[in-house]
Amino acid sequence: MSGAQSELRLPQTLVDQAIAAALGEDLGLAGDITTEAAVPLEARASGVVGARTAGVVAGLQLVQGAFKALDPHATVDVLVPDGGNVDANGAIARVTGNARALLTAERVAMNFLGHLSGIATLTRRYVEEIKGTAAHIIDTRKTTPGLRAFEKFAVRAGGGLNHRFGLCDAILIKDNHIVAAGGIGSALQRAHARAGHMVKIEIEVTTLAQLEEALAHAPDAVLLDNMPLDRLKAAVTLVAGRVVTEASGGVNLETVRDIALTGVDLISVGALTHSAPSLDVGFDFEPAD
Amino acid sequence: MSGAQSELRLPQTLVDQAIAAALGEDLGLAGDITTEAAVPLEARASGVVGARTAGVVAGLQLVQGAFKALDPHATVDVLVPDGGNVDANGAIARVTGNARALLTAERVAMNFLGHLSGIATLTRRYVEEIKGTAAHIIDTRKTTPGLRAFEKFAVRAGGGLNHRFGLCDAILIKDNHIVAAGGIGSALQRAHARAGHMVKIEIEVTTLAQLEEALAHAPDAVLLDNMPLDRLKAAVTLVAGRVVTEASGGVNLETVRDIALTGVDLISVGALTHSAPSLDVGFDFEPAD
Amino acid sequence: MSGAQSELRLPQTLVDQAIAAALGEDLGLAGDITTEAAVPLEARASGVVGARTAGVVAGLQLVQGAFKALDPHATVDVLVPDGGNVDANGAIARVTGNARALLTAERVAMNFLGHLSGIATLTRRYVEEIKGTAAHIIDTRKTTPGLRAFEKFAVRAGGGLNHRFGLCDAILIKDNHIVAAGGIGSALQRAHARAGHMVKIEIEVTTLAQLEEALAHAPDAVLLDNMPLDRLKAAVTLVAGRVVTEASGGVNLETVRDIALTGVDLISVGALTHSAPSLDVGFDFEPAD
Amino acid sequence: MSGAQSELRLPQTLVDQAIAAALGEDLGLAGDITTEAAVPLEARASGVVGARTAGVVAGLQLVQGAFKALDPHATVDVLVPDGGNVDANGAIARVTGNARALLTAERVAMNFLGHLSGIATLTRRYVEEIKGTAAHIIDTRKTTPGLRAFEKFAVRAGGGLNHRFGLCDAILIKDNHIVAAGGIGSALQRAHARAGHMVKIEIEVTTLAQLEEALAHAPDAVLLDNMPLDRLKAAVTLVAGRVVTEASGGVNLETVRDIALTGVDLISVGALTHSAPSLDVGFDFEPAD
Amino acid sequence: MSGAQSELRLPQTLVDQAIAAALGEDLGLAGDITTEAAVPLEARASGVVGARTAGVVAGLQLVQGAFKALDPHATVDVLVPDGGNVDANGAIARVTGNARALLTAERVAMNFLGHLSGIATLTRRYVEEIKGTAAHIIDTRKTTPGLRAFEKFAVRAGGGLNHRFGLCDAILIKDNHIVAAGGIGSALQRAHARAGHMVKIEIEVTTLAQLEEALAHAPDAVLLDNMPLDRLKAAVTLVAGRVVTEASGGVNLETVRDIALTGVDLISVGALTHSAPSLDVGFDFEPAD
Amino acid sequence: MSGAQSELRLPQTLVDQAIAAALGEDLGLAGDITTEAAVPLEARASGVVGARTAGVVAGLQLVQGAFKALDPHATVDVLVPDGGNVDANGAIARVTGNARALLTAERVAMNFLGHLSGIATLTRRYVEEIKGTAAHIIDTRKTTPGLRAFEKFAVRAGGGLNHRFGLCDAILIKDNHIVAAGGIGSALQRAHARAGHMVKIEIEVTTLAQLEEALAHAPDAVLLDNMPLDRLKAAVTLVAGRVVTEASGGVNLETVRDIALTGVDLISVGALTHSAPSLDVGFDFEPAD
Repeated sequence: MSGAQSELRLPQTLVDQAIAAALGEDLGLAGDITTEAAVPLEARASGVVGARTAGVVAGLQLVQGAFKALDPHATVDVLVPDGGNVDANGAIARVTGNARALLTAERVAMNFLGHLSGIATLTRRYVEEIKGTAAHIIDTRKTTPGLRAFEKFAVRAGGGLNHRFGLCDAILIKDNHIVAAGGIGSALQRAHARAGHMVKIEIEVTTLAQLEEALAHAPDAVLLDNMPLDRLKAAVTLVAGRVVTEASGGVNLETVRDIALTGVDLISVGALTHSAPSLDVGFDFEPAD
Repeated sequence: MSGAQSELRLPQTLVDQAIAAALGEDLGLAGDITTEAAVPLEARASGVVGARTAGVVAGLQLVQGAFKALDPHATVDVLVPDGGNVDANGAIARVTGNARALLTAERVAMNFLGHLSGIATLTRRYVEEIKGTAAHIIDTRKTTPGLRAFEKFAVRAGGGLNHRFGLCDAILIKDNHIVAAGGIGSALQRAHARAGHMVKIEIEVTTLAQLEEALAHAPDAVLLDNMPLDRLKAAVTLVAGRVVTEASGGVNLETVRDIALTGVDLISVGALTHSAPSLDVGFDFEPAD
Repeated sequence: MSGAQSELRLPQTLVDQAIAAALGEDLGLAGDITTEAAVPLEARASGVVGARTAGVVAGLQLVQGAFKALDPHATVDVLVPDGGNVDANGAIARVTGNARALLTAERVAMNFLGHLSGIATLTRRYVEEIKGTAAHIIDTRKTTPGLRAFEKFAVRAGGGLNHRFGLCDAILIKDNHIVAAGGIGSALQRAHARAGHMVKIEIEVTTLAQLEEALAHAPDAVLLDNMPLDRLKAAVTLVAGRVVTEASGGVNLETVRDIALTGVDLISVGALTHSAPSLDVGFDFEPAD
Repeated sequence: MSGAQSELRLPQTLVDQAIAAALGEDLGLAGDITTEAAVPLEARASGVVGARTAGVVAGLQLVQGAFKALDPHATVDVLVPDGGNVDANGAIARVTGNARALLTAERVAMNFLGHLSGIATLTRRYVEEIKGTAAHIIDTRKTTPGLRAFEKFAVRAGGGLNHRFGLCDAILIKDNHIVAAGGIGSALQRAHARAGHMVKIEIEVTTLAQLEEALAHAPDAVLLDNMPLDRLKAAVTLVAGRVVTEASGGVNLETVRDIALTGVDLISVGALTHSAPSLDVGFDFEPAD
Repeated sequence: MSGAQSELRLPQTLVDQAIAAALGEDLGLAGDITTEAAVPLEARASGVVGARTAGVVAGLQLVQGAFKALDPHATVDVLVPDGGNVDANGAIARVTGNARALLTAERVAMNFLGHLSGIATLTRRYVEEIKGTAAHIIDTRKTTPGLRAFEKFAVRAGGGLNHRFGLCDAILIKDNHIVAAGGIGSALQRAHARAGHMVKIEIEVTTLAQLEEALAHAPDAVLLDNMPLDRLKAAVTLVAGRVVTEASGGVNLETVRDIALTGVDLISVGALTHSAPSLDVGFDFEPAD
Repeated sequence: MSGAQSELRLPQTLVDQAIAAALGEDLGLAGDITTEAAVPLEARASGVVGARTAGVVAGLQLVQGAFKALDPHATVDVLVPDGGNVDANGAIARVTGNARALLTAERVAMNFLGHLSGIATLTRRYVEEIKGTAAHIIDTRKTTPGLRAFEKFAVRAGGGLNHRFGLCDAILIKDNHIVAAGGIGSALQRAHARAGHMVKIEIEVTTLAQLEEALAHAPDAVLLDNMPLDRLKAAVTLVAGRVVTEASGGVNLETVRDIALTGVDLISVGALTHSAPSLDVGFDFEPAD
């Protein structure tokens, strides 16, 4: 991958596996019967990956992976790197290689790019909405099954931060857990007893009384769920910087700035990964000379 | 899976593989450290899967698959089957089983259900928008990588039809193929020569002249891409029922009815699968007696 | 792969997976203990892939895949491409590379080549038997589990056409389906209601009465199963070109020409893929200078 | 699996993997669209697995595996076990279960059964041809990629014995190895130095002089390749029971008895696994009462 | 799994995958040819899993998984649960089922049990060595490839705690990272900028000066690597409870108590997972009545 | 892999799979968050793989595989090949490549190298202990699940020989099998009837009477289990070179020479693979110029 580069990087092993699976899904047993019928074996082509609407790019390793999986000698010249802004009708990358390979890989490449750029673009809108406040936008585990690593990468490309990646890497005690554990204090005590020294603990609260009880047991963070703005502000005051505060629930582009102005550290937005519309991207062949 | 049933059915082999992969993604190596800390090994629980907003349900085999993967004796009683309407705050299914299993599988189950129900819900909106016309809503290959079978199932649950499932099962000649093949006539000739007798052939055209040239070579369907309404109407008239007509490009909930009224047979909507917001579903434990 | 080339091409992703699996099956945990004992690590060798009996070649991508999997720098120079005729004792390809790699990959390469060339060779015999008629030879789903894509490729290399690739890409209503659906008319109605616009529908009939009933519901093709020649001829007359006609049952090299002369469009032959004897191929080292 | 039983048994883990792969190959993403259209979700059916021509049965674990993969409650009542003879038009097993499941699994089940029974049937013919001699029929590594364990099982079901299962479990020194090692003596010395105490060593020879050289280095077996009958007889005399003798090359049903009468211990037949025609098996639904 | 139970639990999905892989490794293509020869198909047996030497048990889910994979009706009655002490020649579990299944699964079951119990036993020795101090024993990422989840589970069964599970779930800055980042301060600044709010940060230091520099940038923990006892004690004093302290390097059963008495919070021991000798376990059939 | 080379070689297909799995285990979804934070994308580095204590090297293909998986252009210059001796603080290989890739792959590479070199080192100690006797050291099936091919390779690197690789490639009749078969004679008869001509048969005996009974049925080898030295000597005398003799049970570095001096051919040591401590290896970056 030559051209403009970002420091953002997905584990290449995940990229290769995802591309192989996606191509397998599209090719089935018979392969690309249209391209095989219409395009000569050794024809070559060049084309431009572009966006029909403006947005933030994410997923270029997958674009490259798709084209190179079918033509290892294909070249992908990046014009706008992951995390960069592309204008409406702007070019993202130029691709050259075997024509059949480009046509066959096109949809897989565009499906990844459109999906991930859609997430990066929506994330960027939230991030810009709260510019100037101290808050950060973070994602959730409400991701598309099979694509979590990629979607959380796209959130970073958009300027957001990542919440935990799975059930395995941090403790987040929710209402159902509290019921099962017999209360907030008991749940936090059990969590501290189980957590390794590299594992952080967060707990969900909805009232100030719950918050006080939680703070007495030293979590690393509190999830202030579905609180009205005044209660959120009171919660931030109560916490007084002792632990990280995360607001969730009822967050949208209209409400996010007011939430940020309450002083919370983090605002988690499930919609970033479960409801971002795809960025409208396409791949257009350039006429041969 | 007891309770209300639909005739719609996903291959169970695909369901099992998808659930195993999604649980693996969420559990990592350490597993659900929160639930293990907070909930006793043998505790039992019941809960209700419900929707916060109204919509069309899709994905109950995956909900069942997720819970049963972790507790084979869990019971899932379906209240609204795939394709059925759920009201805002309505219940979709009741689940009973080992409490740890239910908590650990919850997010995987909800991620599938929300994603697929979101697609079914959006599809239903398009379908209802064109009620009374002769047109049908169909999907595209613009699906989320890894989830095509599930997303196309959700389109059916919403009342839409499926376009081809992959590059392998039908011939769809697009503009780039036409260029590479040296024209519409040549592309269709090559396609007829290659296509098995169970393979249909569709070709993309954007002008009436192209349409005439295509019709001279007997495709099974024509994709009328990005045509203004009057040209679309003229195209339908020109086709005169000889082949299936599909309109694409610029389709949204505002434009779809006018497009349908041109007399086209099919209207393909990429947004069904790449931009449907998730339906807001959740799983709430019921208090024990 | 240098040398003579065919336009016929398997999805390379399928080739790579099949080679990895086949090598794994042959190597087990201990690897090729004979070659490791007998042949020095860095020895080089050249050899010729040839046929002991005349036939039609199919499977060169797999030959190349096997040798290159163990020596990425091996060269495979193709003398007779897929679909070409090889004489008895004729050479198909010349291979040069690391001696251990060539010896270890030899059986996997020859097993694929012999199996697929056997299918191509038998297909060619059927195709030549009906030369001058309007009929075509097609395959069935009676393929060796795991090898369908490759076997159907070999049928094409032999000059045959492919029937559907799986249960998923076309509707073929057989006798058991008709019983379950309550008759031919009902089965076809249900099929039309379910089929997407890119899905063709074929139905099996054994009598002229059934054929008439089927034609009334506009299938794309009819499978005329196990009909005696005169009935077959009458069926073709009855169809009068309205739908594709496929004859099946009792087809062998002695009967196929008479069947073709009835005027059917297609003759399906399960034996192509389930009973073709392997072409006798081998790999002989050339003496070093 | 109730009913008649054989002591012959495949590792169930291999059966389960092969069935999952074969169903996946046939179902693709869309599943069995014919059956889904024609057959109600909860319909039940019974049918008989039978043979159109007489033969030896092999593969019932795979038949059972296919049906039970799609309906875990299906019952498979075996009438002729693996290794048993079925008459022309005889019944092999009776199957009862969900009608959709039976129809969808039918082809996978029959493809395995026909392929493996074909191998068992051909093996049995060779075995019976040499009845009364001291020789045994054995297979080779010329198997269909991916199916070696199953095909070697079918050889046993037919009454044959198995040669090695892969490159990994025994040493078989062929002509190319001899060249690379610098002669028979050197090759056998290197093999003895490398072989563990549970690994046998066999070496290919084509002349009596080579045989004498080989015997001087104590192999466990000698492969007498492509020897005319008189030379074969002389070779057996020369060996005088010191090592196992295996004849190969030019073996067919016409020549095998004369080869056996030379006194060789084993006759290996590649055709058993690479060229056995499928046994003509089918699955017929029984009319409901 | 009936009988004595522990709250310690591995994700069952990991257990099932590991057992399938381990059985596949041992069975190859031919399966258990000894058992198949010697033991009748339907014979039943009972046996006792026991330890020849005293130790701490870990891995019973894998024991159960192995036996049940080959006989789903086998019963495993646990006498000493994970984390429990078994005496020399003491019984751990009683197993009953199909005799072939028990014999074939035995080695896989014992290999897992012996390996994991060996780790639990060694961990327990370290834990007991530092009894009465405030320190805890933790593991490292020096685990056997493919078995990390299981080995870290065994450490917990022995009474130890887990360090991070992979590169993905916490930041641990080592000497090479410090060099690459241009110093301790710069490395910690970059880490804070990158870390999500649920990700902890630890940094390796070897001198008190480095420790002071690190503390100025608020890590969650410091890894005091290869410090002599007096320096370690000084480091603990300097930290004064502000962050977690972990000692590593030169830890063995002779030195561990003195290290603990310096007041460090954690002592990490790579040997727990890379050098624990297997516990000597076996499976003995009980004579039938 | 340039530099010093060994003739010992693992199947590269197994190496590639093991490396991909091990990297996946360590990287999870988020990847190496430490290295990504601390090290620039394009930084380069060199380092030396070395041993802190003296030992025998094994596993360099895996070291190379790990580094090259993340940087295909990395170079690994081998200084001590598999099977060679490394001194305390000696260098094994020099590695150059992308700095991030080297840091991320380091632990996987070292975990394999330390584990396998530990086995090779322990094997070498046993081998040297019996120098001058006619006996050989062999391994068992008591290997770490998933790593058998690698651990048996390491035994060869240390100078030992391999027992069978799995249940599938040789017959080893143990006490439980004898009970199930109804005695030694019956068990051996059943084994001879089942075994192919390339399959060896070994049987476990503990008394001289059992040995005599076994010898009457011509096994290829006898496993003399847990015999005191005088009985072992008597057994060797009784066998008188007719079959291979293997001693097992109670073997350690103190007893192994006396066991060898009884005249047995083989001494099997489970501890080689289940209890060898890891060799202390590390990877140290070299300061840039």
